[in-house]
Amino acid sequence: MTSENASWQDRFASRASRMNASEIRELLKLLDQPDVISYAGGIPDPALFPTDVFAKAYAEIMADPAKSAQALQYSVSEGYLPLRRWIAGHMATVGVPCDENNIVITAGSQQALDFIGKLFLSPGDTALVTAPTYLGALQAFNAYEPCYDTLVLEGNRTPESYRETAAARGGRVGLAYLVPDFSNPSGETVSLAAREGLLDLAGALDCAVVEDAAYQALRYDGERVPSILALDIARSGGIENTRTLYCGTFSKTLAPALRVGWVCGARAAIAKIVLAKQAADLHCATINQMVMHRVAEETYDKQVARNREVYRERRDAMLAALARHMPAGVTWTKPEGGMFVWVSLPEGMDGAALLARAIEECRVAFVPGGAFYGEGRQENRLRLSYSLSTPEQIEAGIARLGGLVARMADAA
Amino acid sequence: MTSENASWQDRFASRASRMNASEIRELLKLLDQPDVISYAGGIPDPALFPTDVFAKAYAEIMADPAKSAQALQYSVSEGYLPLRRWIAGHMATVGVPCDENNIVITAGSQQALDFIGKLFLSPGDTALVTAPTYLGALQAFNAYEPCYDTLVLEGNRTPESYRETAAARGGRVGLAYLVPDFSNPSGETVSLAAREGLLDLAGALDCAVVEDAAYQALRYDGERVPSILALDIARSGGIENTRTLYCGTFSKTLAPALRVGWVCGARAAIAKIVLAKQAADLHCATINQMVMHRVAEETYDKQVARNREVYRERRDAMLAALARHMPAGVTWTKPEGGMFVWVSLPEGMDGAALLARAIEECRVAFVPGGAFYGEGRQENRLRLSYSLSTPEQIEAGIARLGGLVARMADAA
Repeated sequence: MTSENASWQDRFASRASRMNASEIRELLKLLDQPDVISYAGGIPDPALFPTDVFAKAYAEIMADPAKSAQALQYSVSEGYLPLRRWIAGHMATVGVPCDENNIVITAGSQQALDFIGKLFLSPGDTALVTAPTYLGALQAFNAYEPCYDTLVLEGNRTPESYRETAAARGGRVGLAYLVPDFSNPSGETVSLAAREGLLDLAGALDCAVVEDAAYQALRYDGERVPSILALDIARSGGIENTRTLYCGTFSKTLAPALRVGWVCGARAAIAKIVLAKQAADLHCATINQMVMHRVAEETYDKQVARNREVYRERRDAMLAALARHMPAGVTWTKPEGGMFVWVSLPEGMDGAALLARAIEECRVAFVPGGAFYGEGRQENRLRLSYSLSTPEQIEAGIARLGGLVARMADAA
Repeated sequence: MTSENASWQDRFASRASRMNASEIRELLKLLDQPDVISYAGGIPDPALFPTDVFAKAYAEIMADPAKSAQALQYSVSEGYLPLRRWIAGHMATVGVPCDENNIVITAGSQQALDFIGKLFLSPGDTALVTAPTYLGALQAFNAYEPCYDTLVLEGNRTPESYRETAAARGGRVGLAYLVPDFSNPSGETVSLAAREGLLDLAGALDCAVVEDAAYQALRYDGERVPSILALDIARSGGIENTRTLYCGTFSKTLAPALRVGWVCGARAAIAKIVLAKQAADLHCATINQMVMHRVAEETYDKQVARNREVYRERRDAMLAALARHMPAGVTWTKPEGGMFVWVSLPEGMDGAALLARAIEECRVAFVPGGAFYGEGRQENRLRLSYSLSTPEQIEAGIARLGGLVARMADAA
């Protein structure tokens, strides 16, 4: 709460501090130091981008007078129709039959989270988030001043316990947010039973479910678990009756920098997000939507297959290196896809302190676990991303990091 | 205020209704009817886009392996450094000496308005806006549940009267927003004395000033009035002491669909907007920022000169046609730049009713004035944009519209 007499700069700083954590930026800077092996950024390997296909798409659109005039002009807030139709077809392949009216284009799935926070969270309302959860979701939601409560997916918290906690804080549960597949940061996948349990809970609380599907296409082994939106459709009789908003993106499969993602959900909900989009930035870059449509048509499946092959090899290298080099007392998740392994250090060892020494002594970077909690922190965790490193870099860096952890554990 | 027992869909709809007015979308649809002469959209003529320069920039970046890898990858939230430096140099030409730390790239100036609303407006705070004002600013601010009070630029409202009105509504004045040059929708330019008076007022109220400079480069005649940020710098001794946030864009000079705009202001304020940007959508499309930098370097001045020449001719045609065809009792502004003429119909004639008949009977479209008011409405106004029509289309459409207005005035 700000004082009536605070200067505008103070109020400004106070409001902005709710959107804390410029850790992604700081960590991106580390990537510029060429001798640092970074497991920090959850970002795709640019060597995998289908650059030629993108180049051809930009060139063809700009060479056609009618298309280039359209590509450079203002367009509608819901997004480029052929792209929305392509995405609707894609959603059918993940068990979500829908049409273009169930799709709105957003600037990556990050912007979807901002709009969903804007629509579902009033100050004092509660957002349910897993512990840990995606840092960027907390940053997006923080602007709307929610409280956080921990979404427990395996266990027996009752709807009443969530409701009472939210009421005690002066609001209600507005949404439940999760990354169900190969989660950022944990790498874990939510079971079918837990997804069904979440839909039961959301029904009891009458809140929205936000399914962040950023990594869903990147499964390397194991059985696919149905998407939460697909399960919601199955129990509610059709997409128009669902409460789940599926946030998709091309950032991890084709390329992030065009800033093209989408939300899929009930038409009434999508229409409200379109209004938020219009108020926020009118529409996504027209030319990038047209290009993404061509690139997706031409190479989406091939590109996903190629990504899976390369990232699977890196995940295998990461798990093997951890097994080889980490001392006793260190444990980690075994992701079936995505980009992340979540490591638990021995009790009492601090991830942030380890990072400082790891950069200094090992030239290795990662994200300390404390950043990924809406409330409460587990300081002895860290997130390792294997997406940007070759198997050789993974082996070399984890050998150095494992040695440091062993020395710190011995000294403790 | 929403009821505790409302369903999530109802709460959702209630929140979204604050972001009303999809009139832009509806009006854009009209443009698809080829026989309608539309003065509705405030959008640039795509025939003026430097398409070849854009095509070359996309091709050159995509053909260079290092540049294409950068262009397709995640990047920093503040924006592409060479573009921020170019903009800092451009700001010096409008009387604002600054460096790249005073610049953040946003998805058009529309997104700047969203972030400024997010940072400066808590529910119940007051935003001062001119009457009429830019519809998109109201849409951006509405999400933060402000009250509106009318910013009177010529007259003698005291700071106390604004402060008391805001306090009576349970908040304080968070910002004053205006389009000082060739305003959307009025086409009018705020005088130097009124700009100085506004800075006095903002100082007394300790609030931010939001200078929407979307049309500033498009002056066709008359003397340039210094930008409000330049005046703020002159009185406060340097940009770091200013309270003005200057929102710029390439949308009206180069092309809108890349979604590249910027905010220029004190470093501390810009840093907070960078955090908002990170939380909202991480960053603007990297490739589009790199392309815009090249296109601005190559052709900004030439392009602005060409736009001025073409739009000046259209403005002249619009003013001449209005003088020729409008009946007595109709008045209009005489813009020295930009894209808009603001027409006052005879007292009691309704702009929305005129639109319905104009489309039906004349195949002419425009935006009725009621859409452009934060509080209160003047129903007998309308906004005409001349940016998309040739002098011949302007003459033909205004002749038909003037005839209809005359018939309606006679019948009243």
